[in-house]
Amino acid sequence: MAKDRAKAEVSLEHLFRVFTKPENDDSTLAKIEKHLSDNLSDFLSQHVVAKKTSLEEIEKDFSNAAIPVAPEFVSSHAETLLDKLVAQSVNTYAPTFIGHMTSALPYFHLPLSKLLVGLNQNLVKIETSKAFTPLERQTLGMMHNLIYAQDEAFYEKYLHSARHSLGAFCSGGTIANITALWVARNKILGPDKDFRGVGNAGLVNAYRHYNINNIGIMASRRGHYSLGKTIDVLGIGRENMLSLPSPNQVLEPKDALRVGREYQDDGNKMLAIVGIAGTTETGHVDPLDELADVANELGCWFHVDAAWGGATLFSDVYRDKLKGIEKADSVTIDAHKQMYVPMGAGMTIFKDPAHSNAVRHHAQYILREGSKDLGATTLEGSRNGMAMMLYSSLHIFGKGGYQLLIDRSIQLAHRFAELINSHPDFELVTEPTLSILTYRLRPATLSALSTMHSQKQIELNKKLDSLTVSVQKQQREAGKSFVSRTRIEVNQYGSVPITVFRVVLANPLTTEKDLLAILDEQLSIVAKHSIWQSFAELPESKIA
Amino acid sequence: MAKDRAKAEVSLEHLFRVFTKPENDDSTLAKIEKHLSDNLSDFLSQHVVAKKTSLEEIEKDFSNAAIPVAPEFVSSHAETLLDKLVAQSVNTYAPTFIGHMTSALPYFHLPLSKLLVGLNQNLVKIETSKAFTPLERQTLGMMHNLIYAQDEAFYEKYLHSARHSLGAFCSGGTIANITALWVARNKILGPDKDFRGVGNAGLVNAYRHYNINNIGIMASRRGHYSLGKTIDVLGIGRENMLSLPSPNQVLEPKDALRVGREYQDDGNKMLAIVGIAGTTETGHVDPLDELADVANELGCWFHVDAAWGGATLFSDVYRDKLKGIEKADSVTIDAHKQMYVPMGAGMTIFKDPAHSNAVRHHAQYILREGSKDLGATTLEGSRNGMAMMLYSSLHIFGKGGYQLLIDRSIQLAHRFAELINSHPDFELVTEPTLSILTYRLRPATLSALSTMHSQKQIELNKKLDSLTVSVQKQQREAGKSFVSRTRIEVNQYGSVPITVFRVVLANPLTTEKDLLAILDEQLSIVAKHSIWQSFAELPESKIA
Repeated sequence: MAKDRAKAEVSLEHLFRVFTKPENDDSTLAKIEKHLSDNLSDFLSQHVVAKKTSLEEIEKDFSNAAIPVAPEFVSSHAETLLDKLVAQSVNTYAPTFIGHMTSALPYFHLPLSKLLVGLNQNLVKIETSKAFTPLERQTLGMMHNLIYAQDEAFYEKYLHSARHSLGAFCSGGTIANITALWVARNKILGPDKDFRGVGNAGLVNAYRHYNINNIGIMASRRGHYSLGKTIDVLGIGRENMLSLPSPNQVLEPKDALRVGREYQDDGNKMLAIVGIAGTTETGHVDPLDELADVANELGCWFHVDAAWGGATLFSDVYRDKLKGIEKADSVTIDAHKQMYVPMGAGMTIFKDPAHSNAVRHHAQYILREGSKDLGATTLEGSRNGMAMMLYSSLHIFGKGGYQLLIDRSIQLAHRFAELINSHPDFELVTEPTLSILTYRLRPATLSALSTMHSQKQIELNKKLDSLTVSVQKQQREAGKSFVSRTRIEVNQYGSVPITVFRVVLANPLTTEKDLLAILDEQLSIVAKHSIWQSFAELPESKIA
Repeated sequence: MAKDRAKAEVSLEHLFRVFTKPENDDSTLAKIEKHLSDNLSDFLSQHVVAKKTSLEEIEKDFSNAAIPVAPEFVSSHAETLLDKLVAQSVNTYAPTFIGHMTSALPYFHLPLSKLLVGLNQNLVKIETSKAFTPLERQTLGMMHNLIYAQDEAFYEKYLHSARHSLGAFCSGGTIANITALWVARNKILGPDKDFRGVGNAGLVNAYRHYNINNIGIMASRRGHYSLGKTIDVLGIGRENMLSLPSPNQVLEPKDALRVGREYQDDGNKMLAIVGIAGTTETGHVDPLDELADVANELGCWFHVDAAWGGATLFSDVYRDKLKGIEKADSVTIDAHKQMYVPMGAGMTIFKDPAHSNAVRHHAQYILREGSKDLGATTLEGSRNGMAMMLYSSLHIFGKGGYQLLIDRSIQLAHRFAELINSHPDFELVTEPTLSILTYRLRPATLSALSTMHSQKQIELNKKLDSLTVSVQKQQREAGKSFVSRTRIEVNQYGSVPITVFRVVLANPLTTEKDLLAILDEQLSIVAKHSIWQSFAELPESKIA
């Protein structure tokens, strides 16, 4: 337990010290810092409690809404953080934490994060970021290059142009998707004769001017939930989100074309098709090349949400999976996913450096006309220098380094798929396209489940669903490993969604041994379930 | 100059080391880190070059859009960062850097930033943030308490309720304002008989259902430029931003009521009045208490943008300036401004814990119905644990500590105003309400400028404007100190805006001596200007 929180005197002298005097080497915070630097994984395994406390218990430690009056000494506070916060955090660095896209980070980001705070630059305007502004522009240019591979003259012309931008750095994929589709909306319903554009006149006047009922955004049902938020916040309304069924986990081009045409024939206008490069739930990649042609045919924007899968472009082995991404008008990519940058490094990259002028804005004290202030075309205002983390990663890993990491993850996912397939009590539900896969426990006695008649299948799947939920929770609570779960429709079981384990293989430190241990643990958990036992006992004839 | 970048081999072994082996104590990055910890201000003054290089020169260092193929050793890269990036950064910690809201941060944020990256929690869902979720909820509760001061039973009921939230943590004030007005829009055009709400049906159907032409947002002309972005992105259109003239730098309640009524009489609906607590340019606070009544009278939302001024609530001496903020439906506050938290700590606080349900959304793999995942009501998705920085600051400063810092800044601003007023060649343009003020160089011979006839006044003000721009730039480039500039309309010069120096006194280390030095430097710069000399030579009769 933490000791009583030691209170300091309320004096300016004390506060000045907080601003000017670093911690002593033997202070608690300095010791935490040293331990982090010396051996992060040891720090985490020593301080993060493996066996999880219930959320309700943890909430008790964070239940006081009163702001303390007296200042507290830093060291005393640091002890509280260790006891109450760090102890109950999730060890996302653990090689067996493979349930979400958050994983281990390389060491150099620890000191760099200190440098970031120490410099405290604000990227909204050049007056508070000087060299960080060109650095961010270069970094966006490198990412543009990764996707669109234009020639040197192109980058020489646009990289530092005050009237252009190759992209927008932002806090994450959601803001990136909103930014891209905001630009798309303002371009497609842009200024015209006697019309000052949707940004000025609003959607209602835009629909009237362009004589349309609604505008729509299309994606497969595997589209990220941020698309729903986007269409809501942009004022278009969730009913105009054309979410197409995707039993094969991808948006079928011919369905997209048919639905898009029908939608437009009804007096509506397609705003954008969103192709996904690495769906959040199964890691699938839409047929981007064909979807680009469909978007072209329909006369709408083509956006690719490559928040997760974009980094695959580093791999000469696998980049073909994203063929057609270079036709996209805009691309979302998150460096804090497969590029191992700390959270807060989202980007929209624009094919055309003039695109973002559709949302350009000015103010009197910053973002003045002609300035190179980055804030003039971003949705966010003040932002920190997170671009440095990506800039450094691009140099320290290099294209070659990223390729090795990406290739390793995808190959490990394939190996995991083999392990699952080779065990009679597991069912691989979706194959890994990139490094994500889904599977579940399905007893050998039910190996013919997918061919059973519908009602019986639904009934048995319901039982398996509850098993999957239960095993996933128990494994999480045991604290040794973590896989996530989701509900998806898959071809083999028709339109009724089933619950599956979801695994994201991104941590470079995860080994085949870790994966085997996770399967073993699941088998040992499920063995105790009476439902599972009843399956095992039943002769096959009785089930079918 | 940086040495040639040392390239590492492209091998998984090398990459694993980047993930598992920290820097040696004698590596460049470790030395940078130690210097930052030992004496941040010494690090900055040693590495940040005072005399500024031109932006075009700096851009040359960041002009390569090619991604390097081979990995680079961390230490080699760190040297490049020092030479090219740190050297050309802005020293926002300097006590004489008083031009923007970005200033010095307390020391404890350096190690905490490492802890943040080391833990790498993702706040969107509890599975990747466990204790950070309750911590963020508590922190939002403390801020709610600061504004709305409800009783203990209220916080006990709502702080950790899965169906409520007291606010939304986000990357900054812009996202906070968008979130607040998104919620307002979805509440005011919410679900109704035969209508599924604007979030589902879109603005066009909402206007039709509610039989209105447009919805509008009102603020004074001093409203932050993020309001323009907000009304654009929400689909309402910038033409429905009712920006009222504000010669006294505030939104006059009777004007607000009159304009609001006229707007509604024309078949429109007022969405929100935005009161500002600390305008970005002059630091003024709108008469919140009366504006709350106007909003009530008009039947619209009342939002307060207290991104800058919200921290004034810590001060028993000055909190009355924000009287009426407790009537606001939502409040924006940025902890990375006057609360000395690193960038990325914006918040919207909601008076009613059910407000944010107007934008609640779900997904299958996270944000499930009934979960306490924070992402269910935020605009952003993945977010880091920045709330920890605010949580720690609230404990380490305490209300008492923040009060001292706030009081000191406001008192220093008043002292600076006195210094300006007492010098015949300066004109205080706007008095400090909080810790921001504006002024300019105006020669003693023109002390009667505000009473001169209009044409002559405009002409002379134009000359002074160009002087202000020139002096501001020269002072910035000299690199010893920094004040910003803006253009504002002020009562004494009618509706024609004038250019002024803008000063933000937030750095607790800034002293009266620093301020005197800044005025002296400006006088010595301007003395060399021929325009200024000509003013000095002219007898007063000739000017008027």
